[in-house]
This record gives sequence, structure tokens and C-alpha cells, in this order.
Amino acid sequence: MKTLKEIQEYITHTIQQLNWNKAPRGLYEPIEYTLEGGGKRVRPALLLLTANIYDANLEEATAAAMAVEIFHNFTLLHDDVMDKSDTRRGRKTVHIKWNENTAILSGDQMMIEAYSQIAKLSADKLKKVLPLFNKMATEICEGQQYDVDFETQDDVTIPEYTEMIRLKTAVLLATALKIGALLGNADETEAQALYDFGINIGLAFQIKDDYLDVYGDEKTFGKPIGGDILCGKKTYMWLSAWKNATEEERRELMSWLHNQEAIPNEKIQAVRNIYTKVGASRECEVAMEEYHQKAVAELDKIDTNGDKTQELRNLAEKLMGRNK
Amino acid sequence: MKTLKEIQEYITHTIQQLNWNKAPRGLYEPIEYTLEGGGKRVRPALLLLTANIYDANLEEATAAAMAVEIFHNFTLLHDDVMDKSDTRRGRKTVHIKWNENTAILSGDQMMIEAYSQIAKLSADKLKKVLPLFNKMATEICEGQQYDVDFETQDDVTIPEYTEMIRLKTAVLLATALKIGALLGNADETEAQALYDFGINIGLAFQIKDDYLDVYGDEKTFGKPIGGDILCGKKTYMWLSAWKNATEEERRELMSWLHNQEAIPNEKIQAVRNIYTKVGASRECEVAMEEYHQKAVAELDKIDTNGDKTQELRNLAEKLMGRNK
Repeated sequence: MKTLKEIQEYITHTIQQLNWNKAPRGLYEPIEYTLEGGGKRVRPALLLLTANIYDANLEEATAAAMAVEIFHNFTLLHDDVMDKSDTRRGRKTVHIKWNENTAILSGDQMMIEAYSQIAKLSADKLKKVLPLFNKMATEICEGQQYDVDFETQDDVTIPEYTEMIRLKTAVLLATALKIGALLGNADETEAQALYDFGINIGLAFQIKDDYLDVYGDEKTFGKPIGGDILCGKKTYMWLSAWKNATEEERRELMSWLHNQEAIPNEKIQAVRNIYTKVGASRECEVAMEEYHQKAVAELDKIDTNGDKTQELRNLAEKLMGRNK
Repeated sequence: MKTLKEIQEYITHTIQQLNWNKAPRGLYEPIEYTLEGGGKRVRPALLLLTANIYDANLEEATAAAMAVEIFHNFTLLHDDVMDKSDTRRGRKTVHIKWNENTAILSGDQMMIEAYSQIAKLSADKLKKVLPLFNKMATEICEGQQYDVDFETQDDVTIPEYTEMIRLKTAVLLATALKIGALLGNADETEAQALYDFGINIGLAFQIKDDYLDVYGDEKTFGKPIGGDILCGKKTYMWLSAWKNATEEERRELMSWLHNQEAIPNEKIQAVRNIYTKVGASRECEVAMEEYHQKAVAELDKIDTNGDKTQELRNLAEKLMGRNK
């Protein structure tokens, strides 16, 4: 099992083997539903790819990979309640299909299930991995809180936004990579390089997500275009546009932001035109490319020829090129 | 630090030392608020008492004691959202003082904080304690789910109810005791006896809580009498009464249950009279006493003279006699 494709098949198979067929059904059925909902399984793949590089024990790496995937899906479940999102991956969210209390409690249990996977590690690995996992979990909650705070904060800067998405999104990718490395007893420098690769690819990935919401193709993006514009989310695109806009252009942006009666497609088109005009699209492309380059530079610390990290490099390309 | 009183002072002091003065405030302030809300700190006291008996490392025992106390308060926080409770320990609940999303996210972070305390244990202790902690956490979620299920289930039996409160309440006391013992390298028989002591005292304690809701004194009970009767909760008292009632008495119970216009005190008085008449109070007293005796019998396996377990015996008496 060396290639990304083999690893992804292995992950799908392993998730299917998790047994949720137990009582009480009201607790476990929503967990099963959430985990079978698909998604790209990027985080466990990153973990297993690095575990592979350092010849980690497969059983331990699998448990840790399941832990990060279950934890990730737990955060989506509770975020969907907080954001009142009705759909996720084309299906009803848990609080819509069941109810809010179910989403809260089954989400709690998913977090415990993640820790139950971590508990399978041997004593010395556990002692190293658990604090990392906890730090990541805390940072994701902090990121989510900043995301909530930013909704009602009018002076959010791009560095503040970048820190928020680092916590909310990038840290989980980074930690998955570092755990894989530690399970294979990688030295601290390489483990840290992999962590930093994860942070930078995570930032690039999230900024790309903000970009594709404006300029993407619905078919390949996987969700409707313009969602962020319609709900007035302060994305990288918005913050960049706001920073670069003239007084006149800011007034224009604001009037679209508060225009609830606009025809959705007209609103999206108009805001997109401003984004392009003021150079937000260009700034966003540059930022993505910079973080992508920084990510690759971290891998170059481990090998420049890709002997060890080729599959990670491939995955990074794939993540960044998903609109092609 | 040997007596219960000294241990309780130590716990209060240690909880005050936990540092929540960090950003983002929206995440950590509700955690600080929840943990300074008081409560009897029974669970960390049980853990520290057994840690004391077996001369466990104080630093490790303290971390584990904080973990169980933080976890307990996390469950209360999320339960209050699910139950839509407005007050807890005489103060506004978090979802009332802030909002539901805050209660969800700060609650999630509290669970992570509990695991961060557990992560302080040495590798070999961590490997033993984490699976226990996870099992307890899972069982509490299962207990909560059964509690929810029972609300809409008309044929709940006393054994089913007992299993629910074992999971939701007793397992946390039992696990606190067992962790304290394991941290001191107690042998498996004694650790198990302490666990079973915790289960039985937990059951006795919860049944007593159901009993005091009907027959207690508001001043010493700490919350208004009759709350369970007014919200139609299927407590041990209700289930016992239902089991023992004649057809006529069942009709009477049902008509009170569905009577939303009754004057609260009249409703409480009427249901109390039926409980007494059909022998539910007596059955409840017998059950409490039986579980209390079983609990003490578990301690007798460790010592019959109380050389080692005297403070635990005292705490059990105190828990059972809190209406005096």
C-alpha cells in the first residue's frame, strides 16, 4: 500500500468496518450516517502517507487515521448546528434529519470515539500523540470561535483571517501529517517540516476554497458557486477586496452586502466584477501560490527529489488543482 | 491531606488555579463561569481519596481529578442545552447567559480540556487510564440517550431505568474511584471493588435524588421540590408507583400527569399522596438502602474495620444523609 489511490481505498474499507450497529440507536445511527457521508478523506490519507514514509506500525497508523477522520466529521456535525446548515455533501445534516439535541449528543460521542481510537496506541506513542491531538482539537475550537466572532466584527484584517483559518482548517492537516511521522519515529526536524507543509497547504487550500466560491465551476467545486457572497461571509476574497477598494467601491460592496432583495445571480455577478476590478482575485491567486510554494519548500527539507515525499507532493497538487 | 475536608479545600483551590484568562474570550469565559459555579466536587474528591489510600503521585491524581470534574461539568453544560434548563446551581445556564452556540462550542472545548488533563499522566498510567476514561465518557452519552428515549417510551421498567442511571450517573463516580486506585497501583480486585462501590453508591444517590424531589426539604435539597412531578419525568418514584398502582390509581396518576392547568403545589401534593399510598416511597427507601448496603459491602472487601476506607465510608454516609 504505497500510492494515494491504494491508501484511499484502504481508508474507505476501514471506515466501513467500524461497527456502529449497537444500542442506543438514537446515539449511534447519526454517527454512522455522518461517517458514511463520504468526503475526500484527505486527513487520514495524509496521516497514512507519512506513516508509510517512516514505516510506522500499520495498526497504530490506522487507529490514528480513524481518530482524525472521526474528529473532523465531529467538527462538521457541530459546526452545521451552529451555522444552521441544512445540507452537507448533498445530504441532510444531522440536526435536520433528526434534531439539534441528537446532533449535539452524537457529536459529543464522535469526539469520544476519536479519543478511543487514539487510546489504541502503545504507551510511548500515546504519550507523544495525545498532547498533539489535544492541542489540535483546542485550536480548532479556537478557530471556530474566531470565525463566529468575525461575523460581527467589521475590522477583520487578512492576517487575522489567515490565523483563523490556520486554526480552524490547517492545523488538522498539519497534525495528521505530524502524527504519522511520530508513529514512525521520524526525527523532530522532519516531523516539524511535515507539520509546516500541512499548515501551508491547508492555508492554500482554504484560500482556494474562498476563491472558487467566486470563480469556480459548480460541477467540479462540489457546491453552489457564490454561497459566501450570498450569506455575506468575510472570506479572503472579501477582505482583500475591501482592503484594496476605493471609498466608492466600498460603498458599492456594502450596498450589495446589505441588499437582500437582489436576484442571487445578479448579486454574485456584481460582487465578482468588483472583486476582479479591485484586484482581489489577483491577490488571492498570489497568496494561494505563495502558500503552495512554502508548502513544497517544507518537503524540500526532507528530500528535494521526492524519493520519500512524492505521494505527498502529488496529493498537494491534487488539492490545489481541483478546479481543473 | 487525608480528610475529606482537606481534600475538598484542595480541589477548590486547584480549580481556581486553572487559567482561563486567554483568547478567544467567547470560548473560555463560559468555561470559567461553569467551573466556578460550585457544586459539591464529589467526583474529584472520590478520586483523590482513593489516590490517597494507595499513595498515588499527587500531581497525577490532581490532573485526573480535574479531568473528571471538568468532564462532569461539560456533561451538565450540554445536558442543560438539551433539556432547555434555564438555571443551574442558582445561576443562569450558559445557553441562557450567552447562547446555544456558545454552550455547544465551549462545552466541546471543556471535553478537550478534560482530555488535556488526562494527557499529563505518565506513559504507563496514561495507557491504563485513557481507555477507562473513554469507556466512562461513552457510557454517559449512552445514558443520556436512554434518558431522552425514555421520555417518549411508555413501558420503561425499573431495571431499564436503573441501567440508565447507572450509565448516566453512577459510572462517573465509579470511574473516578477506580482511576485513583490505578494511579496508586492498587491490585485489580481492590480497584474493581472501589468501582463497584461507586456504582452502588451512585445508584443509591440518584434514587435518593428522585425520592427527595417528592419528600425532600427545599432548604437542604438545594432545588425546588416537585420539579420532576411538574415536568412529568419518569423517575424511580414514578415507575415504582406505576408498577404498584391499581387501574384506578393509574388513571389518577395519568390525569395528574397530563393536567397542565393544575396549581403546582396541589399537583405535587396529590401525586405525592398517590406515591405514598401505593408504596412507591417505601420501595424507593428499600432500594436506596439496598444499594447503600451493597456499596459498603464492596468496601468491606478491602477492609472491614475502615483502616483504609474510612473517609470513603464517611463520604458515602454524607451523600446518603444529605436531607438530614
